[in-house]
Amino acid sequence: MDGAIPAGLLSAVRSERPLIHHITNSVTINDCANVAIATGAAPVMAEAAEEVADMVAAAGALVLNIGTLSAVQVEAMLIAGRRANELGIPVILDPVGAGATTFRTETVHRLLDALDIAVLKGNAGEIGVLAGTGGSVRGVDSGGVTGDPVETARECARLTGTVVSMTGAVDVVTDEKRVFLVRNGVPAMERLSGTGCMASSVTAAFVAVADDPAVASASALAAFGLAGERATACARGPYSFRTALVDELAVLTPEDLSREMRIEER
Amino acid sequence: MDGAIPAGLLSAVRSERPLIHHITNSVTINDCANVAIATGAAPVMAEAAEEVADMVAAAGALVLNIGTLSAVQVEAMLIAGRRANELGIPVILDPVGAGATTFRTETVHRLLDALDIAVLKGNAGEIGVLAGTGGSVRGVDSGGVTGDPVETARECARLTGTVVSMTGAVDVVTDEKRVFLVRNGVPAMERLSGTGCMASSVTAAFVAVADDPAVASASALAAFGLAGERATACARGPYSFRTALVDELAVLTPEDLSREMRIEER
Amino acid sequence: MDGAIPAGLLSAVRSERPLIHHITNSVTINDCANVAIATGAAPVMAEAAEEVADMVAAAGALVLNIGTLSAVQVEAMLIAGRRANELGIPVILDPVGAGATTFRTETVHRLLDALDIAVLKGNAGEIGVLAGTGGSVRGVDSGGVTGDPVETARECARLTGTVVSMTGAVDVVTDEKRVFLVRNGVPAMERLSGTGCMASSVTAAFVAVADDPAVASASALAAFGLAGERATACARGPYSFRTALVDELAVLTPEDLSREMRIEER
Repeated sequence: MDGAIPAGLLSAVRSERPLIHHITNSVTINDCANVAIATGAAPVMAEAAEEVADMVAAAGALVLNIGTLSAVQVEAMLIAGRRANELGIPVILDPVGAGATTFRTETVHRLLDALDIAVLKGNAGEIGVLAGTGGSVRGVDSGGVTGDPVETARECARLTGTVVSMTGAVDVVTDEKRVFLVRNGVPAMERLSGTGCMASSVTAAFVAVADDPAVASASALAAFGLAGERATACARGPYSFRTALVDELAVLTPEDLSREMRIEER
Repeated sequence: MDGAIPAGLLSAVRSERPLIHHITNSVTINDCANVAIATGAAPVMAEAAEEVADMVAAAGALVLNIGTLSAVQVEAMLIAGRRANELGIPVILDPVGAGATTFRTETVHRLLDALDIAVLKGNAGEIGVLAGTGGSVRGVDSGGVTGDPVETARECARLTGTVVSMTGAVDVVTDEKRVFLVRNGVPAMERLSGTGCMASSVTAAFVAVADDPAVASASALAAFGLAGERATACARGPYSFRTALVDELAVLTPEDLSREMRIEER
Repeated sequence: MDGAIPAGLLSAVRSERPLIHHITNSVTINDCANVAIATGAAPVMAEAAEEVADMVAAAGALVLNIGTLSAVQVEAMLIAGRRANELGIPVILDPVGAGATTFRTETVHRLLDALDIAVLKGNAGEIGVLAGTGGSVRGVDSGGVTGDPVETARECARLTGTVVSMTGAVDVVTDEKRVFLVRNGVPAMERLSGTGCMASSVTAAFVAVADDPAVASASALAAFGLAGERATACARGPYSFRTALVDELAVLTPEDLSREMRIEER
């Protein structure tokens, strides 16, 4: 991919400052808010049924993350998602722990059936489960996929009609036809709770200012992964890594991204 | 304002260690707890209808923050607030996102109608909306006020019968008659999620040990802003700034506050 | 205690990577997830009644923490706890704020009556209240016990039939017959919100891989306390201490633990 495109998207996030409405889990909600700000966007977290349709109307993108889902929260996701669909606001779904319990798997299918999802951003195990080609999930951790990761992601994109953004050692982003491999990132990101959720927030910020959700998703993962690479320099463990990760994301320039992104179209 | 008064209030927080009961949002709840401790108070977060009347009875102040409100949570706020009023325990209301959705705006009016609020602590957009003189709010961010900030705050204080503590580049605290301008603080505080919520926790700690909620609110904002000023020295981005902010608040002395506070009575 | 045993348990956590299912409070949930990872375990937070029985079936231990309890959450705790009991999965109960409100105290008794709890991990005030021998709790902070701390913990273990793990300047772990005193730890841990909750997560990770919950609990407190001791070197205040605490826990080796643990069997 031409580095000017991701750089242009990062610039656009910073100048347009899109509002990113999150309905998300209670574990990583603070990091998601701060990562959205560091990317250049304005986060808002709201999940009361009474207000989500109002709130999402002002948003540039909506993030639905089922990390600590409840029946009440899922109803709010449906209300917000339907309104977002009516208004043409892109919806990013993070199917946290799909495959770990029936409730999570069924909820993801329900959201995919009821809503037009722009980007389905999950780990390999979750995407394998949703593709129906075999994936393993323990708690909220990926146990990997049965077959080829790229074909798994493509099959999931075909089945769901979404852009699939599958994180891992190499991230795979595909709209079934095109496949982008993103090689930015470091293993330390897997030893910190919530990096997957944070990646969804960065993705939403990029998708909010882009026409092409696949290119935006790959660009977002490159930006977030690059911040992770830079963060390792001053990290002694997971919390100093987190501090450096968010700091580096905030100071990452479009030029850095253009120069150091490693996105390959395959 | 005489620097000895804010210094004396900070000393009083540290010696009396008031319990600050929070009913607050899930985004910044951890930072609020830690900031309350760093100020010198003892935080407790409790929002079950079954226990809030019990819990608030032991508190020195009650914080109501609608950042991620729900109908159930608002009922708990009313129960706790009524009990606090009966017992003469001051209530600090943070109207997060008032103006962004009808549900938030109506909830704030409902709380203001039902309860005797000691301090209404919001950003400029929220206070402008509640004053009825014009304010703009997007998500949870202030878009500013239509007219003069000081007159907006005074009008809001007049209408609501509360002390209004309006944060911004210059904070305005007023009980309609007196106006305090607080010039401590740094722009980095606006690029970190939750500094507004944290300011409410610091305010509650000061109000809990004071007779005059306007003076206590201005002193609290000066103390928190001063911690922010000192934090910039070792901050590379938003998360190292947060670390330094809470660290600096914990080591801030009454002498520091007396010497470096910038509160002007107008 | 022979240092080889705690070291062996830490090694076992790192090689087995047990899933630790938490039903916990919204204040410290993120720190608990990250501390579980730093210890070597895999955390999952899930509290929907629809899924907790499914989720706990894959877990090595279940943590029930009532820090921000609600009636709905307590029902989920009962469902998850009963399933854990059926499957022989150890349950760790953290009775946060027992004694501060009737709702908290009654909920703890309800959980103790309905479930087979492996370890009851609380502060001195909470354990004193539950022992019925006198304890004082304000908000979620211990006000200490009336009588002898060791006898209080033993009485609580006798009454409840659990291993009692009572944190304080010196931690007391007892199954009524044996008493372990753990002298690792530093006062800075008391000035950071959530260290008690984090200690429960570390405890769960150790208990998940052990046969003896008393030895595992004492070992866990030694490991966590030791990380705290090492963290003080680079801490300027509560947030830099937290960063260092989690970093140090992640790099703590079994050899460190074997050499520097201070557990005395009395």
